[in-house]
Amino acid sequence: MRQILLVANKYRVPVFPRGGGTGLAAACMPTMSGIILSLERMNKISIDKDNLMAEAEAGATLGDLIKAADEAGLFFPLHPGDEGAHIGGLIACNAGGVRAIKTGVMRNYVKGIEVVLPTGEILILGGKLVKNNAGYDLMQLIIGSEGTLGVVTKAWIRLQPRPQASATIIIPFEDRRKALEFVPKIFQIGVFPLAIEYVEKELVDQTAKILGMSWPCKEGKYHLMLILAESSEEALLLECEKLMDLCEKVGVLEPIIAERREEQANILKIRSEIYSALKNELIDILDTTVPPAKMADLIESVNKLAKKYETYIPAFGHAGDGNLHLHLMRKEGWSKDDYDRLRDEIYEKTIQLGGTITGEHGIGYVRRECFKKFVDRKALELMKEIKKAFDPNNILNPDKIFI
Amino acid sequence: MRQILLVANKYRVPVFPRGGGTGLAAACMPTMSGIILSLERMNKISIDKDNLMAEAEAGATLGDLIKAADEAGLFFPLHPGDEGAHIGGLIACNAGGVRAIKTGVMRNYVKGIEVVLPTGEILILGGKLVKNNAGYDLMQLIIGSEGTLGVVTKAWIRLQPRPQASATIIIPFEDRRKALEFVPKIFQIGVFPLAIEYVEKELVDQTAKILGMSWPCKEGKYHLMLILAESSEEALLLECEKLMDLCEKVGVLEPIIAERREEQANILKIRSEIYSALKNELIDILDTTVPPAKMADLIESVNKLAKKYETYIPAFGHAGDGNLHLHLMRKEGWSKDDYDRLRDEIYEKTIQLGGTITGEHGIGYVRRECFKKFVDRKALELMKEIKKAFDPNNILNPDKIFI
Repeated sequence: MRQILLVANKYRVPVFPRGGGTGLAAACMPTMSGIILSLERMNKISIDKDNLMAEAEAGATLGDLIKAADEAGLFFPLHPGDEGAHIGGLIACNAGGVRAIKTGVMRNYVKGIEVVLPTGEILILGGKLVKNNAGYDLMQLIIGSEGTLGVVTKAWIRLQPRPQASATIIIPFEDRRKALEFVPKIFQIGVFPLAIEYVEKELVDQTAKILGMSWPCKEGKYHLMLILAESSEEALLLECEKLMDLCEKVGVLEPIIAERREEQANILKIRSEIYSALKNELIDILDTTVPPAKMADLIESVNKLAKKYETYIPAFGHAGDGNLHLHLMRKEGWSKDDYDRLRDEIYEKTIQLGGTITGEHGIGYVRRECFKKFVDRKALELMKEIKKAFDPNNILNPDKIFI
Repeated sequence: MRQILLVANKYRVPVFPRGGGTGLAAACMPTMSGIILSLERMNKISIDKDNLMAEAEAGATLGDLIKAADEAGLFFPLHPGDEGAHIGGLIACNAGGVRAIKTGVMRNYVKGIEVVLPTGEILILGGKLVKNNAGYDLMQLIIGSEGTLGVVTKAWIRLQPRPQASATIIIPFEDRRKALEFVPKIFQIGVFPLAIEYVEKELVDQTAKILGMSWPCKEGKYHLMLILAESSEEALLLECEKLMDLCEKVGVLEPIIAERREEQANILKIRSEIYSALKNELIDILDTTVPPAKMADLIESVNKLAKKYETYIPAFGHAGDGNLHLHLMRKEGWSKDDYDRLRDEIYEKTIQLGGTITGEHGIGYVRRECFKKFVDRKALELMKEIKKAFDPNNILNPDKIFI
């Protein structure tokens, strides 16, 4: 690895590190002649039960990590989508997913990395360390840098005790705003779910149909899907009770509670496959993120835009995080400019609401132009200086993030 | 603020940002002529219950934050020591504290900052955002940079639902290694404490005496102090039961369980004041951190060094984190060189065990020489490039971290 980068740096050959290829911002896409650096054969993974750490090579998959932790009686709390994603990629894009509200994102779990710099040096940053404050945190800088500052080859990832009981609950509402305003109330009564997802019934029904499955909640147009994970069955029951009391007080439609593992897996499967169901007609999946309490405002604004542009913008998202995935769908007769115009209007609204154009998918190749438009000048200048310090010849993933 | 930095930058005047002055690495100490920039009058704080966010100015204290969150029915999960610490300082040094195992450190809670750069620009990085992946994470870089990259003036800090019940448990052991080997077993049975502290009876008894209090556990020389915080009394009881079953299985001395708020506060008070009790005769408090399962090895090595150097090195630490605070005490006839020699030997052992010279206190002024000795050359070079990009004239806290 070191040799490849040394040679590439010497002869100024672009290098494109590639993990599982499951990212949604084309951060691993080779966009010019160069070397595609696949890490898939560096796939060892082992669990250190006494330090609660996984040691994983970059090419191990999310699925491998979840399985290895489980076999050791421990738990990797995140679930950032596709289980074929590689550890290196999860770190490169600081993956998030449905469980970020309670457990945080990838950068909260990575405690150490081995990284090969574009100039050929190998750095070990952190390690099996729960705390480390020795100078600037270069590891945190590399996490989320989308393969532009270094090639992560190995990582030490903190695991947690395994929750002993979980339930998936669907709460239906007739009114979208009422659904989203329910979210902070959950926290305020002291309940702390692993996930709170917002879905629209029409879209999940459509997805379920494609999968030959059935979404269990038949009422209401707007659904919150919650996952509760607790340390015991008794604790879970109590949290469910608190939640049901709140439902009654607020006045919602009839909630569905799934406790059997299979039932829960089916609901999660349908939720996870919404993207696949839309994929064929999809032009772009947006990753707009606003303060959670502004999510209803964002959806309403987007619906107005959909009317204005006479198009359909399916939406679902991580309601606890304010992370809304909006889908720009193929429209007969539209050119790139038409999609760009609509996207820009959505991004402007997002920024107005105190948000960001990407909460978890990153900039990659597809958002470079928008990023340039919306990022602060000075911040961009600093990022470019950092890129130059790490990669003076601009060989590593050279046309990502920046344009 | 901006004007001060613009003028200072123009005339190359050093600026020393100062928060509560509670840091333990002298990161805020003015070490040459210049401007001391106190942020204590920027102390507003407000809670946004719907977004679970505190908006705090840099000069608000940790105590203010805890109180404001509590009054809003929410919870700030960290407790990094002195409640007089300022928010700006907590961010500048990425504060940790006793609760890092379950809840993480400061960088896991800071979701947005307003920062004034040494060149006078004001950046807003992040916001009331649970997720943000828009380019390199400059905010994460600034967190832990000890006031050398920018002056944090405001922050958005994520709060959590309040745990409804807590207990403090002291488990005594006759054998140190047995005590520390008990720690991973706690996680393996699925119990996830808020804190696991390691103390030695002699030292806590001594501290309690100075405070006119009494440490409730009379047995054993080595104690683990655990805090459990759960969503309900019932859940707490079940976790306590699991823990007591483990105690019986492993064979420990008689544990003490404190459930009343006052009892718990007294135990925490004694634990928190160990540092104060030692302060008068203290030369240096170390902040060595190793993989948690290596903590017994580190303590044993340090005890050998204490014998070799014929001195006393009191120790306590965050057992769940592998973060051990070792105290170099005044010794008749010793010069700076003697203390330096001992410290270096401790640091060498720490690094051998896969550790770091500072887990939570940072480099500041006091650890600059050691940092230079133990940091990777290339990593240091990158840090210096970053410093140069942010602060081309080296005016901001100019002699901290780097030498």
